[in-house]
Amino acid sequence: MGKIICAGLGPGDPDLISVRADRAIRSARQVAYFRKAGRQGQARRIVADMLDREVREYPMEYPVTTELPFDGADYNDLLARFYDGWADRLAALAMHDDVVVLCEGDPFFYGSFMHLHARLHARARVEVIPGIPGMAGCWHATGQPITWGDDVLAVLMGTLPEAELARRVAGADALVVMKTGRNLPKIRRALAQAGRLDAAWLIERGTMPGQRIVRLAESPDTDCPYFAIVMVHGHGRRPALLAEAAE
Amino acid sequence: MGKIICAGLGPGDPDLISVRADRAIRSARQVAYFRKAGRQGQARRIVADMLDREVREYPMEYPVTTELPFDGADYNDLLARFYDGWADRLAALAMHDDVVVLCEGDPFFYGSFMHLHARLHARARVEVIPGIPGMAGCWHATGQPITWGDDVLAVLMGTLPEAELARRVAGADALVVMKTGRNLPKIRRALAQAGRLDAAWLIERGTMPGQRIVRLAESPDTDCPYFAIVMVHGHGRRPALLAEAAE
Repeated sequence: MGKIICAGLGPGDPDLISVRADRAIRSARQVAYFRKAGRQGQARRIVADMLDREVREYPMEYPVTTELPFDGADYNDLLARFYDGWADRLAALAMHDDVVVLCEGDPFFYGSFMHLHARLHARARVEVIPGIPGMAGCWHATGQPITWGDDVLAVLMGTLPEAELARRVAGADALVVMKTGRNLPKIRRALAQAGRLDAAWLIERGTMPGQRIVRLAESPDTDCPYFAIVMVHGHGRRPALLAEAAE
Repeated sequence: MGKIICAGLGPGDPDLISVRADRAIRSARQVAYFRKAGRQGQARRIVADMLDREVREYPMEYPVTTELPFDGADYNDLLARFYDGWADRLAALAMHDDVVVLCEGDPFFYGSFMHLHARLHARARVEVIPGIPGMAGCWHATGQPITWGDDVLAVLMGTLPEAELARRVAGADALVVMKTGRNLPKIRRALAQAGRLDAAWLIERGTMPGQRIVRLAESPDTDCPYFAIVMVHGHGRRPALLAEAAE
């Protein structure tokens, strides 16, 4: 009886994978990973030099969804059946040997694996190995701490309505906005409304080959990948020297 | 000419250190780490089985501060001189060989190393290796994802005023409250005011020996360590099946 091991891959540089996940991936005899139909997939690319030559691979290809509205019942049904099917398949594969499921970033932080986890945890042995979240790779790419002192950090999805984004941007010291892509013009307007646009950075492929860091104010709206991150650094609510040492 | 390598240690389990930081720590000939005077220090404990027997160790002991008010000028002066002194010392040590500075969690996420980084980055070669943030270790300890779908995550310090805490708790889907310790009664009241107390968990030593996870509502205020984390999981703003796959 094997188990399903979800290995967090971190922000993209294979050298930033945890020792435990690295070991699980290198010794895996079965691996599964999400990808868009017809693509190699980012998760698979990260581990390209780590997999055993004899490994059996199970690409979990998202069903094509461009014909359906994202919020519609059909779209949700299609995705539910996709996750149901792969939950069954992974449970079957794990009957005889471990299966390692590759997940970018941290699996429990806005990760797709949770849809499988919700279906599997009661009927199979599931182990989840944390990873460095993609956003941390992005703030390291900027070479500056994201938060100091008593800063409040807000993590927002670019899919939120513009007015809500603007309100939340104005209320936080440090900001991470994920799910950018086609939402970038809206995110830009929300940052401008809140007076934070000049402090914002757009980071693509943090820690990966082709990493790109630009000031959002100087970047066009075109060609922003969905997984690019917008970030505003905090500057410390209180003087930079404070009470970590005191307690 | 060596460099100063800040190695993020992650949440506490040495197996969750990144491959790059693991390699830097195991091959280090000089290591430095923060600790309270008279203590072994958490960072040093995490790497206890990884250090070379010949390594030279530089414990950076926080100056004793219990006689001074935390917000006072004397306290800040004392800490500034402490960081100034160690910045000079690390720069000198790095003249001849690399120095690895051990930092719990992720060094650029509320880490003490940033006080050294701010003093060193212009005059020495400094490399910072990301780590899994301590909060991620804590949400993995609970066995549940912290965020789903379009959840808004707020990261708050327990040092904030009660009214602000309550307002921010009410406004976020998922919550992480750090710097708990003696702030726990205030955090508890803020959560209760916002109607979120019953959903809150208190996690100590996530991923480490002695890990403890309790419902905050069932836990007394006594003996909460400063680095324990209070957490409320998000439940997904939209139906659990959503648009990651779509773009």
